[in-house]
Parts: sequence; structure tokens; C-alpha cells
Amino acid sequence: MNEVFADRVVMGSEDRLAEMFGGSLGEDGIKFSAGNPNAELFPIMQMKKAFNKAIEKSGSQIFEYQTVSGFENLRRRLAQWAGQTADIKAVADNILITQGGQQALDLIGKLLLNAGDEVVVEAPTYVGALSAFDQYDPYYYDVAMEDDGINLEQLESVLQAHPNIKLLYTVPDFHNPTGVTLSLNKRKKLVELAEKYDFFILEDTPYRDLRYKGTKLPSIKSFDRHGHVLFVSSFSKILMPGLRVGWVVADKEIIDRLRKLKTSSDLETPGIVLAALDQYMEDNDLRKHIEGMLQTYRSRLDAMLAVLDETMPADVHYTRPEGGFFIWLTLPEIIDAQKLLSEICIPKDRISFVPGKVFYAHRNKKNGMRLNFSGVNEERINVGITKLAKSIRTAIKANEVGALL
Amino acid sequence: MNEVFADRVVMGSEDRLAEMFGGSLGEDGIKFSAGNPNAELFPIMQMKKAFNKAIEKSGSQIFEYQTVSGFENLRRRLAQWAGQTADIKAVADNILITQGGQQALDLIGKLLLNAGDEVVVEAPTYVGALSAFDQYDPYYYDVAMEDDGINLEQLESVLQAHPNIKLLYTVPDFHNPTGVTLSLNKRKKLVELAEKYDFFILEDTPYRDLRYKGTKLPSIKSFDRHGHVLFVSSFSKILMPGLRVGWVVADKEIIDRLRKLKTSSDLETPGIVLAALDQYMEDNDLRKHIEGMLQTYRSRLDAMLAVLDETMPADVHYTRPEGGFFIWLTLPEIIDAQKLLSEICIPKDRISFVPGKVFYAHRNKKNGMRLNFSGVNEERINVGITKLAKSIRTAIKANEVGALL
Repeated sequence: MNEVFADRVVMGSEDRLAEMFGGSLGEDGIKFSAGNPNAELFPIMQMKKAFNKAIEKSGSQIFEYQTVSGFENLRRRLAQWAGQTADIKAVADNILITQGGQQALDLIGKLLLNAGDEVVVEAPTYVGALSAFDQYDPYYYDVAMEDDGINLEQLESVLQAHPNIKLLYTVPDFHNPTGVTLSLNKRKKLVELAEKYDFFILEDTPYRDLRYKGTKLPSIKSFDRHGHVLFVSSFSKILMPGLRVGWVVADKEIIDRLRKLKTSSDLETPGIVLAALDQYMEDNDLRKHIEGMLQTYRSRLDAMLAVLDETMPADVHYTRPEGGFFIWLTLPEIIDAQKLLSEICIPKDRISFVPGKVFYAHRNKKNGMRLNFSGVNEERINVGITKLAKSIRTAIKANEVGALL
Repeated sequence: MNEVFADRVVMGSEDRLAEMFGGSLGEDGIKFSAGNPNAELFPIMQMKKAFNKAIEKSGSQIFEYQTVSGFENLRRRLAQWAGQTADIKAVADNILITQGGQQALDLIGKLLLNAGDEVVVEAPTYVGALSAFDQYDPYYYDVAMEDDGINLEQLESVLQAHPNIKLLYTVPDFHNPTGVTLSLNKRKKLVELAEKYDFFILEDTPYRDLRYKGTKLPSIKSFDRHGHVLFVSSFSKILMPGLRVGWVVADKEIIDRLRKLKTSSDLETPGIVLAALDQYMEDNDLRKHIEGMLQTYRSRLDAMLAVLDETMPADVHYTRPEGGFFIWLTLPEIIDAQKLLSEICIPKDRISFVPGKVFYAHRNKKNGMRLNFSGVNEERINVGITKLAKSIRTAIKANEVGALL
């Protein structure tokens, strides 16, 4: 029946996200492949109270149809939050609440992209964004990541060569998958380029508030003068992913159009979840909750960097993030991380990571891997990375003697 | 900035749904325009208990990322439910849980429709389906509704003339907006046509379990032999719309593809809502809850039919539904229901209905209106319909003397 499906389905690129979640390690396997926050830090009791209070306050009203934009009180709070945490001037009308950050990416793709439209992504970039945009069949130009974010010279030559580029997608803070943070200077420059070449910047910031060291930077959106930047964030990493609540901050004109697309896509996000979240933020200090998590995540980051420094061979490189969930490790070019994973690390070491290929729009690089440190404790980080280093050495050696992995 | 948006946005047809929700009547206005269940009948205390139990049972796990298909226990329950209420043989793998029925319509559109693909819809049809499909820019053929559902002769000649038709959308039970139910014979015949002309039937059944009189009919899906029927339902009308939970029942191959599209669209529906719903169904008998509502809705339906019979002029026609939420009223062709609403009924009578134009794919009929009876009590039904009848008489008279409304 294949021929009856739409082109967007037959091309099959919507499998990108599904690909990441496969593979079973057994119970005591060590999973560096996840992108999950540490569930032990979830404020379950407070959230339970918040659900109860929300139901008691609103009664049946909260289970009726709500508004498409999402609970107004919460939108007002999120506008304040954008001011406090990202230096963005916003009011409730600048906010659309979405079904997690993923829906924000989907709706922005739906809003902007005709088949064949040109999009710039980082190389590597967040696979969920590729998965969302793929549905609208764009053409991707990828631009290399450096230690301070996207390579601007390369970007500008792409923009000069392709004046119709509509959208640039970036994760400026503790980038997924590399952990890299975009420098202050590059943030300003990106907005100038967006103005000069007239494209939108989708600034995706789920990790923004999870900084463990170094100095906080203003958001790209804070430099935006003419509505070129669409700012997206989410409660998934700073609170709990299962709530499935994200949001977009943008000019009212854009929000109005995104809201219409959301109406056609799923009508609205469950009011009870938004009311409970609003109640949680009323009764608790979300910033304090986040601060409480920083120490745990900082120790895990430091532990992973220390054991990497100690165990990895000289021709293996890795990033030194100041926040977020991920370290990006680059193997010698001859090593295929996917093979390393499926032939050695999963069956023998019982450790997992995400092989890099999936993070490239054109799937043309095989020697990177994403390591998650936020979901694994220090002891297991030490054990797992030590095993990984040993297997990498074995693989390099095997390649040197001609048995290509 | 219009030129930067995708074609699907510029064409603006995603406004269809938004259009229905406008218009303020003030507090004691009588709203026949809604499509809401009666919120007084919501089992709030039971649902609150279910949320608490779900959180107590699963702890932090329920706030982590879940699975895209949705809580497995609930999918198993829904497979049983499909068997008990719609004579469909299904297991959990045949079920995808969606963000309300609306997301099911969106995902099926995403799965099947390239721009220009041909779709058959009833005339009139559910506006939310048009709004979902419009995003993928199909071409609609509309086929007239009769008292026993879609006109099959007309349908077959459309199918003969257009052999590439991919999808037929139907609401067979207490149709939105007309209230009409598809006859048993036509149900069987529809499946035969789908086999003969090789198209999918999207059977949308949110009102299926809300029958107040007459004999229950098997679903169209129950006659399906080769996977031509995609069955969609929802908790919105039988329990509470604010939960935003719907589902698709289809062959596993279709469910797998829809699940991938859901992954790219919003990753998943909130686990806590699905776990609470599962718990609610564990601890309560949903069929009993539904039976408890039938008496209220039946009285309201009877009250509206009685006052329509009593007050409406002879050249006004209306359907006599056996369930659901709506009666469809047809004015003499010369009367524009939209004008009647905005010039007389809202400002003078302070009553509202949904003018029919929005329910036609090509917006080419103006003399129908959808009346909701489920959300208004008998006394107000009497007052409101009496006013409406008077205003219709006035409008007919004004047209007769040449002052066209």
C-alpha cells in the first residue's frame, strides 16, 4: 500500500527520532544514550498537591475545552520568566504554549516551510528538530559547530550563495548534541545576519537554565529588533518531561498564526496539566528547584570530564560544556561510532551512547557520539567511560592493523 | 511578511475552526452554538482520585518521557472498548492514543495527503476535519447527506469520475453537524465501495456511544476486511474534553506509521493524563457513567424537537437525531443563516447557533444552521427556540416583501 501514503511519509525520514530510542542494555547496563533529566529530582509531592489544588479551584471548568493558546495565567508567568531568565520583553500575547518543545518545532516548520524551502542547521544538530522539519520536506544546508558555536564565516558564505534561506535552527545554550555554548559576540552577529539576509532564527533553549559553571549569556532573542527570532523553551529539562509542556515566545503576529496551526493540529494542550503547572509555580520557586538540581548535574559533568581526561587516547576529542546534559566525543575519522556501539559497547560492555550520524542533516559523518552525563551517577560514569575508552583503544588498534571496524 | 510563510498558511483555511468559537452573548444569552458536553455531568471527584492514585502508584516514572503510542494498559482497555462498543477486533498494537480526536485527524491527513490529493467529504461535514486536512491542501469532492447518511449513488459517480480518490471522511453516528445516522445497509455498502475503488474510510465516532433512542448499529470498521477503515474516537464527548485524549484503531502497519508521525509532531501525550484515565476506567464503569448522561441528553433532545415542531414555519426543515449533540435546521434557500445570526439573533435575541457555511468544504451553502441541544437545559431550549422561530418568520417575511436579509 506504500504508494497511497503522502510523500513526506514514503521518504521515511520521520524515523530519525525513533532510531535513537532503540536498544536494550539489561538492568545494570550503563546508559549514556538518554536525554532524560534525573527523575530522582522531580518534585512529585509538590506536583501532586498542585494537581489537587487545580482541580479543587476550577472544578469541572478545567476539564472543559480551554483556549488554544493555553491557560492565560501560565502564559503571563512564562512572559515574566522569559524576562527574568532570557532578557526578553514579552507579554502573555507573545506566548503560545505547546505540547512540549517538539510541537513548537513542528508548528514552526508548518508555518514556514514549503517543500524545497532552504533551512540552515548546525552540524551536528538536534535530531528532533530535523524530525519535525523533515515532515515539510525542506533542503538543509549545514554549517560546522566550533567551540563557541556555529561557524559564522561559513554561515555567511552559505547565506550569500542562497539568498532564499528562510530559517536557521540553533540550540545556543549547551547545545544538543555537542554541549557547546554560542558566544556573546556570535549571538549579536547572528541577529545582524538575520536582518541582513532576512531569515528567521529558531532559538531552541531547553537547557538554558542548566548552567553549572561560567557566566550566563543573554538570549539571541534579547538582541532581536524586528521579530526575526522565534524563541522556544520547555519544562522538560528544568522540571519534568512527562508534562509535555513547551512554549514559543515571538511577535504577536507569529503567535497568532502558530495558534491557528495548533487549533488544526490538536486544538489544545490539556488544561489540567497547565493549571497544575501554574499552581506549582504559584506555590513553589521554580528557580530554587532548578538551583537544587545544578549541584547534582555539575558533579556528574565534572566526573565525566575527569574520567575522559584520564582514560581517552590522544586522538579522541571531546567538548567541555558548562551546562546542559551532553558531551560530544569525536573519534578518529576511520572509526564508525554506530559499529562501535552495536558490535562492542552494547553486547560486550553493556554501555550505550547515541552514534553521531543521526545528528547530521545529511547523515554524512560517522565518527561522533553523544554522551549523556545527567542521568548517570558518578560511580557508573567512571565505570562506563573507562570501559568505553578501552573499547575505543581496541577499535583504533584493530583499524591500525587493517581490521576495519 | 506574508510571503515568507508556507502556502498552507497563506491560504488561511486553517481559520475554519477559529471562526466557530467567536461571538459573545453576555451571561444570560442562550448558546446553541457550542459542541460541549454538559460539564455538570463530569465525574470530577472520581477523576481527582484517579490522578492521585496514578501519581501514588507510579511516582516519578509517570513524569518521565513515556512511549509515543501511549500508556499500554490504556491501549489494551481501548482495544477491548472497541470490541464491546463497536464490534471491532483489536489488540493494543492496533491502537494509537492521540491528543484528542483532532490530532488523529491531523495525523491521518499527514499520513495520506499530498497537495492536490482527492478527498470525499459529506456536505455538510465536521469543520474540524476540514481544518485538519486543509493543512495538507487536498481537493474536496462533497457528497450530499440524506436522512440515512451519505448519498451512495452520488458517491459512486464521484468515485467513477475520479479514480484516484484516497480518502472518504464520515461521521456515521449522530453526524456533526446534522445529527443523522448512517444506515446499516449503507455501512456495508461503503466498505464494498472502498474495496472496489481502493480508498480509505476515516470513520470518526465521537458521539457513537451517545444514543438516546432507536437501535445501535455496528461500526463501519466492523465490516472491514482489508484494512480500508481507520476508526477514530475520543473521550471528549463521553467523559471530558479537557483531557484531550482520542485514539485511532487501524491495522498495525498504519498505526506504526501514524506513531512515527506523532513522534515528529509532539513526541507523546502527557503520561499522567493517560495513567489517570486508565485508573479512572479501572475504578469506575465508564459505560455506567455514559448511561447516566443519556437521560439528561435525551430530555434535551426531546425538548428541542418538541418546541421546533411547535414553533417553526412549514418551509423550515430539521433533522430528528437519535443521539449525539446536534440538530441541523435548513432555512428557505433565500435566507443567509450568518446574517440572521449577526443581525438579529445575537444582537436582539441573544441566542447563538453555528451558521452552516463553515461546514461545507466549498462554503457554497448559506441556509443551514447547527443547533446544539446537549449544553442547554429544557427551559432555556424552549425560550431560545421560540425566539429563533420568531426571528426566522420575520426574516422570511422581510424577504417576501423584498428586503433581502
